Amino acid sequence: MTRMLESYAQGRWFAADDDGAVLRSAVDSSEIARISSTGLDLGAMVDYGRTVGGPALAALTFHERAGLLKQLGLTLMAGKDEFYEMSRHTGATTRDTGVDIDGGFGTILSYASKARRELPNDTVILDGEVERLGKKGTFLGQHIYTSRQGVAVQINAFNFPVWGFLEKLAPAFIAGVPSIVKPASATAYLTELVFRRIIESGLLPQGSVQLLCGSARDLLDHLGGQDSVAFTGSADTAAMLRAHPQIVSAGVHFTAEADSLNSSILGSDVTADQPEFDLYVKQLVTEMTVKAGQKCTAIRRALVPAALVDDVLTAASERLGKVVVGDPVADGVTMGPLASIEQRDEVLRSLRGLTKSADIVFGDPDDVDVVGADTANGAFLSPILLRAIDKSAAEIHDIEAFGPVATVIGYDDDAEAVSLAARGQGSLVASIVTADDSLAAQLIRGLAPFHGRLLVLNSEDARESTGHGSPLPVLVHGGPGRAGGGEELGGMRGVLHHMQRTAVQGTPNVLTAMGGKWVSGADRIVSDVHPFRKDLSQLVIGDTIVGGPRQVTLADIGHFAEFTGDTFYAHTDPVAAAANPLFGGIVAHGYLVVSLAAGLFVDPAPGPVLANFGVDNLRFLTPVKADDSLTVTLTAKQITPRASADYGEVRWDAVVTNQNDDPVATYDVLTLVAK
Amino acid sequence: MTRMLESYAQGRWFAADDDGAVLRSAVDSSEIARISSTGLDLGAMVDYGRTVGGPALAALTFHERAGLLKQLGLTLMAGKDEFYEMSRHTGATTRDTGVDIDGGFGTILSYASKARRELPNDTVILDGEVERLGKKGTFLGQHIYTSRQGVAVQINAFNFPVWGFLEKLAPAFIAGVPSIVKPASATAYLTELVFRRIIESGLLPQGSVQLLCGSARDLLDHLGGQDSVAFTGSADTAAMLRAHPQIVSAGVHFTAEADSLNSSILGSDVTADQPEFDLYVKQLVTEMTVKAGQKCTAIRRALVPAALVDDVLTAASERLGKVVVGDPVADGVTMGPLASIEQRDEVLRSLRGLTKSADIVFGDPDDVDVVGADTANGAFLSPILLRAIDKSAAEIHDIEAFGPVATVIGYDDDAEAVSLAARGQGSLVASIVTADDSLAAQLIRGLAPFHGRLLVLNSEDARESTGHGSPLPVLVHGGPGRAGGGEELGGMRGVLHHMQRTAVQGTPNVLTAMGGKWVSGADRIVSDVHPFRKDLSQLVIGDTIVGGPRQVTLADIGHFAEFTGDTFYAHTDPVAAAANPLFGGIVAHGYLVVSLAAGLFVDPAPGPVLANFGVDNLRFLTPVKADDSLTVTLTAKQITPRASADYGEVRWDAVVTNQNDDPVATYDVLTLVAK
Repeated sequence: MTRMLESYAQGRWFAADDDGAVLRSAVDSSEIARISSTGLDLGAMVDYGRTVGGPALAALTFHERAGLLKQLGLTLMAGKDEFYEMSRHTGATTRDTGVDIDGGFGTILSYASKARRELPNDTVILDGEVERLGKKGTFLGQHIYTSRQGVAVQINAFNFPVWGFLEKLAPAFIAGVPSIVKPASATAYLTELVFRRIIESGLLPQGSVQLLCGSARDLLDHLGGQDSVAFTGSADTAAMLRAHPQIVSAGVHFTAEADSLNSSILGSDVTADQPEFDLYVKQLVTEMTVKAGQKCTAIRRALVPAALVDDVLTAASERLGKVVVGDPVADGVTMGPLASIEQRDEVLRSLRGLTKSADIVFGDPDDVDVVGADTANGAFLSPILLRAIDKSAAEIHDIEAFGPVATVIGYDDDAEAVSLAARGQGSLVASIVTADDSLAAQLIRGLAPFHGRLLVLNSEDARESTGHGSPLPVLVHGGPGRAGGGEELGGMRGVLHHMQRTAVQGTPNVLTAMGGKWVSGADRIVSDVHPFRKDLSQLVIGDTIVGGPRQVTLADIGHFAEFTGDTFYAHTDPVAAAANPLFGGIVAHGYLVVSLAAGLFVDPAPGPVLANFGVDNLRFLTPVKADDSLTVTLTAKQITPRASADYGEVRWDAVVTNQNDDPVATYDVLTLVAK
Repeated sequence: MTRMLESYAQGRWFAADDDGAVLRSAVDSSEIARISSTGLDLGAMVDYGRTVGGPALAALTFHERAGLLKQLGLTLMAGKDEFYEMSRHTGATTRDTGVDIDGGFGTILSYASKARRELPNDTVILDGEVERLGKKGTFLGQHIYTSRQGVAVQINAFNFPVWGFLEKLAPAFIAGVPSIVKPASATAYLTELVFRRIIESGLLPQGSVQLLCGSARDLLDHLGGQDSVAFTGSADTAAMLRAHPQIVSAGVHFTAEADSLNSSILGSDVTADQPEFDLYVKQLVTEMTVKAGQKCTAIRRALVPAALVDDVLTAASERLGKVVVGDPVADGVTMGPLASIEQRDEVLRSLRGLTKSADIVFGDPDDVDVVGADTANGAFLSPILLRAIDKSAAEIHDIEAFGPVATVIGYDDDAEAVSLAARGQGSLVASIVTADDSLAAQLIRGLAPFHGRLLVLNSEDARESTGHGSPLPVLVHGGPGRAGGGEELGGMRGVLHHMQRTAVQGTPNVLTAMGGKWVSGADRIVSDVHPFRKDLSQLVIGDTIVGGPRQVTLADIGHFAEFTGDTFYAHTDPVAAAANPLFGGIVAHGYLVVSLAAGLFVDPAPGPVLANFGVDNLRFLTPVKADDSLTVTLTAKQITPRASADYGEVRWDAVVTNQNDDPVATYDVLTLVAK
């Protein structure tokens, strides 16, 4: 007997002691491993995640979690050869494996990098602006995100045994939520190998990741309102999980990403001799054959102007004729087998449904030339291209053949292209191939409510396009309706899905103490030491310098106009300025106001403040007239040390007021300050 | 027989012709009206919303929808007296009715105002920054939100017949999604009256709002992946709806806001002689008695330091002794009846559960003094205050008596206060009453994962506090777990819940055409006419002016330092500047760079550009050394006409480059431009 795959639960490896189920190679049906979860205490896994993994992650900031993820990504990338080797048995060619393995590790690295750039070095995220809830400003509102105190159960599909689990794990890890990874059995041997290397790296805190190989059995019964389930797979299984009594009644967060009938639209502007025509056909064939079409994002419906259907079928068939099916490691092979004999048979069943409303134009479901393998033992199938007989028939919009299968459907006008795409009842992605940007904009607005992602391909972006079928870590992945109604990835959006948003009401001082960011109205600390003389370790939020007053004379305004060349009439021409509806007379330049304000708060001698690298949210609130006096108040608002440098960022709240205490300008000053 | 309440479906009023169910006054059980939906074609209502209401709303921008909502709010507010009068029968006192009616109309007005300030004058919302997906910048990503192409079904609770439906309707309307409003039968007569005035106003587009009085029957069977159901009510009904086959399998968006066991924590720092002690007790009694405690946000569990339990019980009982129960319109009455005899009996049942683990300290479930009404015919109940016998008993954390009932529970330390609050398994709100800001911050971080809203009350914000029990339109309302796992309101967050987020990939020109906002890398339009000479109607996105070059001399830098007073060493001291790790020599002030840039792009003579009112996202990217030459490129990025003024806002993309074409500064310039 082959080896029993192991689960990793409660900090140790576990092997079931029954016979389990047999997992077979897609290429030759040889036995690869066995799988079973019999005897594994799933309630204890959930409890371990909550009580050991959760607190361990909560002790780390977003930046610290990102640092671990970066190290993990680099470690896995360095050892990827053994993963590539094992990937062959899933039916993946080298190109397919790149999508799965490099794509998975790249997702980890993307999350590590974005979390450090976009999240605070803290465990709480502030959401949106402070809301003033009363006239005097003593009662304010601020939304925050905090980490859920539960586990993230991740139920993955068979087609991407590496990317599939890492794209779910990375956002949960950054969010501080421990994961329980449940791979699909068919290809779990690859997931288990990668997971083993993760555990061996010793990088991740105890309990932050656990692995469940085999049936999920009673796992869901142990979940509650702080836990989540993220599922990728068929719409039927998604519906079954969604109706699970515990998910229905305990407030378990549930999200699904299901296979969908994605479409690719050839724009009505494109003719057969345009480069966009070739781009369209090439992308269609790529999407049919990568992973042997076993991608939830693959193109199932090719929507083409009615007049071009024949041209597209001819050109696509020609390209499909060059596809070489066989053992992924054999020379010249460009498409491997499906994941298993069962999967191939499932595709053949779907094909019988599709052919009620569509004719096969390329390929033979019962016959395929295979290189380097025995047709009888492997899950091989020819690419199959169909032509819709009736564009409105239910089958072509409803039946998903999860393999190298697509149907070309003719449409009459742009509105019909949109409505045919919408017949998929919600899809993960659609692509639009057009050279007309305003047509693209119009189609996007029509298609967007039904899609999680839209890709516009033309000759300008073709070289850089990542392709119809590729979810990216920085963009959301998921779709409404039939596509599961879920959303994953999308950079930090995917992290927030693991966190609870809470509105907090209180005084400026309470919100400042809570969020680590000074809120207008909170106490200011004025001392004898200029805050620019304090390094990052000495500076505290609320440290303040008040500078001024300085009078702005008419001569100052005139001189500034002449010196900078900004001779706008409101600064130089008393008569014209008097006619301006907002000013009613000569006013100082906004840039003069902030320049003078800097003169009032800057401390000249060398010290910990290294540079002013920017300004945010500058608003000019009251015009500054000649002989007005300016005072500036600068308060340390947010202090963010950088892990990788000997300085950090300090954001200062700046308020410039006039002699009547009216605010004339408010803004944030951004500086780099030494540690 | 009394009048049959009518539904408003497919653009006309509909009255069922059976007898229906009888609705009775809470005060005296007199018959108010009858209700039935027998014979109403619910599938046709859904279809009408989708095909008539949806397109009508889609033809309006967010600002136009906001304009209608503002007019509607003002119209309803002006006619509110008749609503107040009818509200008495629900058991509401004048104070209670204010929360329901003024609160509801205020929510409409808040949405109208915020939508105009925070959303574009368009039908699509851009989400987040442009993501660069390739090195050359030809392939970018941008997330957008578009309106769902379905209906929003809103199933409301009996306790707020006006606010309850308007707080759901307003965000859906702004989002462009037609509503089907289904009030709870018990108080539907008040909803129907307000709805009638809405229809009579003629302000809202046909099909954008429909009313369903009576049973929802087969309504959910007609919904699909573009539709949503928002439910407010009991956790049991929420679970039943969530498991509905159509919601489970068709991707219908479902959100629930359920009653929860909200807690109020008296901080461990507070002593009985502090003002916070009185604030705590006063708020507790208010929450018990407003709406006779029939609020999903009311305080059910009063968590108090163990040593102060007696003091809190004494002080609260004293205040409760002053509560006058009776007919809401009778003189001196401060608390009305519950909504119905059935509701009162339900509360008495819950009380029998609670008293297994808690003793009644104030009030008698079987006896209450009633002013101006007959105890036997009205749903009257005394406020009931309990003291927990065992702080960890299941009953006090699980059983919600939906009436004027609260339990005081002693806790030993701060961590226990948090864990007892979390025993509610997810709540809509908790309040914290403390004078210690850092204790508040610590409790917030512990409580937040279990709550949708947290309120910190102290002597500083007490006068402006809107209270534990009041959801606000600008803050999210909802809670995890037992509280339903939903989220409503929260300003524009509530609008986005009705929209689909989609990642769009394409060239800068495609994204510009789609989003109405110029994207860096898209075409620039340079013409003979300076863009500052164009009014709003002439200016187009992409209009560009290039100014420069201008050399910056060492003398310029020295002069600027002297003139502004900004004599920071990096601008004035060659030796010290050379030692700066970022500059390595004298550099120009950032403010000098942007001031000179303005001199290069400003067109001095009077024209349509009225003022520069601000600058966003200014970043200094490359130091400017003496004798560097600056060029500025200013491009019209976003054009937003204001409906209520004869000018609008234009956002310009500004890039300053040096003689090597390195960008030295990038920012957005904000101007007001005449129409």
